[in-house]
Amino acid sequence: MANIVIIGLGLIGGSLARDLRRCGHRVTACGRDAGRLAPALKLGIVDAVEPDWQVAVAGADLVVLAVPVGRTREVYARIRPHLTADTPVTDVGSSKCSVVRDLTALCGRLPAQFVPGHPIAGTEHSGFAASVEGLFAGRTVVLTPTAETDPAAEARVAALWLEVGARVLTLSAEQHDAALALTSHLPQMLAYTLMGQFAEFGQGKTLAELAGSGFRDMTRLAGSDPAMWHDVSLANRAQLSLALRRYMERLGELAAAVDAGDSERLLALFTAAQAAHHRLPAA
Amino acid sequence: MANIVIIGLGLIGGSLARDLRRCGHRVTACGRDAGRLAPALKLGIVDAVEPDWQVAVAGADLVVLAVPVGRTREVYARIRPHLTADTPVTDVGSSKCSVVRDLTALCGRLPAQFVPGHPIAGTEHSGFAASVEGLFAGRTVVLTPTAETDPAAEARVAALWLEVGARVLTLSAEQHDAALALTSHLPQMLAYTLMGQFAEFGQGKTLAELAGSGFRDMTRLAGSDPAMWHDVSLANRAQLSLALRRYMERLGELAAAVDAGDSERLLALFTAAQAAHHRLPAA
Repeated sequence: MANIVIIGLGLIGGSLARDLRRCGHRVTACGRDAGRLAPALKLGIVDAVEPDWQVAVAGADLVVLAVPVGRTREVYARIRPHLTADTPVTDVGSSKCSVVRDLTALCGRLPAQFVPGHPIAGTEHSGFAASVEGLFAGRTVVLTPTAETDPAAEARVAALWLEVGARVLTLSAEQHDAALALTSHLPQMLAYTLMGQFAEFGQGKTLAELAGSGFRDMTRLAGSDPAMWHDVSLANRAQLSLALRRYMERLGELAAAVDAGDSERLLALFTAAQAAHHRLPAA
Repeated sequence: MANIVIIGLGLIGGSLARDLRRCGHRVTACGRDAGRLAPALKLGIVDAVEPDWQVAVAGADLVVLAVPVGRTREVYARIRPHLTADTPVTDVGSSKCSVVRDLTALCGRLPAQFVPGHPIAGTEHSGFAASVEGLFAGRTVVLTPTAETDPAAEARVAALWLEVGARVLTLSAEQHDAALALTSHLPQMLAYTLMGQFAEFGQGKTLAELAGSGFRDMTRLAGSDPAMWHDVSLANRAQLSLALRRYMERLGELAAAVDAGDSERLLALFTAAQAAHHRLPAA
């Protein structure tokens, strides 16, 4: 049994609280607005809500920052004076270079006890109301320790995620950000853009009747929180920009083949993509 | 009870056969290769397999062309001499201007008994093995009759789709093609392009572990049949090209906002898209 403090009780923080408590840990929730955390206490999803972050963090065996990635620095600055020297801290942000950069700027170097993390889990829904038990079962959690990271802190954070059923994958922050730009941040931009084009087209009711399961899959992510994605797209700006540019090149090539009626090229593009899809292991 | 002939027993033809037979109709299947239709007969999904199309079509109350859209003209040319004057014929192709154009070129004008149709149903799987009962329940089927279409033929075709649980929507072929370019053909191109970029990135195994549910939704369509999509993308070339160009403009605008760190613009784009997503009625 460990005392785990979760700061931010949205989809990820709330789901993690549910699982950790089920595993027998004592979970304390902190947040900007203690009133908003009250339902979690009432529902028995956390053991305590601590409005005084100093008190919460001082007694923690491990601290999880489950706040929007753009708020990581500000929240870490607030808890930093109250952390004991060996308390591991981790985060759940979707970009990792920005977190390393932000905390390095704040502290002079990345704190040895800070283990950057990112659970690849979630839905298009956000907030505590969307939190569920078992969200991380079978999912991948990426940790991006640096040479300065304390191996004991890393092991403690890894153990926490393993306990809730996740797989742990260790990458550099750069590897993580390049890969996630492609597998998560670019797809999110594509979904928003498609949904925007649909809205612009007009004929809403008729058009909606023509939107089959394919369209719905391709726009499900457009239901996601704009504020969160604003943060992520700017935090991982460099890699997202590269992924977007490459995508536009590829789509431009496809459009040119459509315009030219280039059967061979279209078949080659579609066939290669289908083959890649067949190689993708089942989730 | 009607004698219905279905030419082509893939996902759409096979699923329609299952439903029509359950409704008490007599269903006869034709196809290029009668041997490939034998399993459907054995499984009791059709009442007969007729290798002689002349015989099949001569006795039909209604004929459904469920072949790839690029083959419509060739198949219609083959059955045309054997159709009685009042036998309604419909198709299931994903583009409608091309079908009207192809049959007009063949016959001098669109035959009055031909009712162009398109059921908005299907999955990323294709072929008879993927066919299922109830595929059309609650789905929209678009009919695109012209001024020359016999209203009785149109009513017969509409009744067939209503009987298997679909909603029938009547549009012009142009309206259909512009809308479907956006709701179906463009999303298909986006999925193929994203999957192609994923394959190009390398690091297959690690990358696959980082592909969450969002990525899987955004690439599910990449599993679709390249030959079918080759046909559709060329058949609806003009409208698909317009949709692709507009999409690249919009994505370019988003990429510029990412590069410029334009918070306000990004939030506005994401918020508008999320609002449009919330307005989309449930399927």
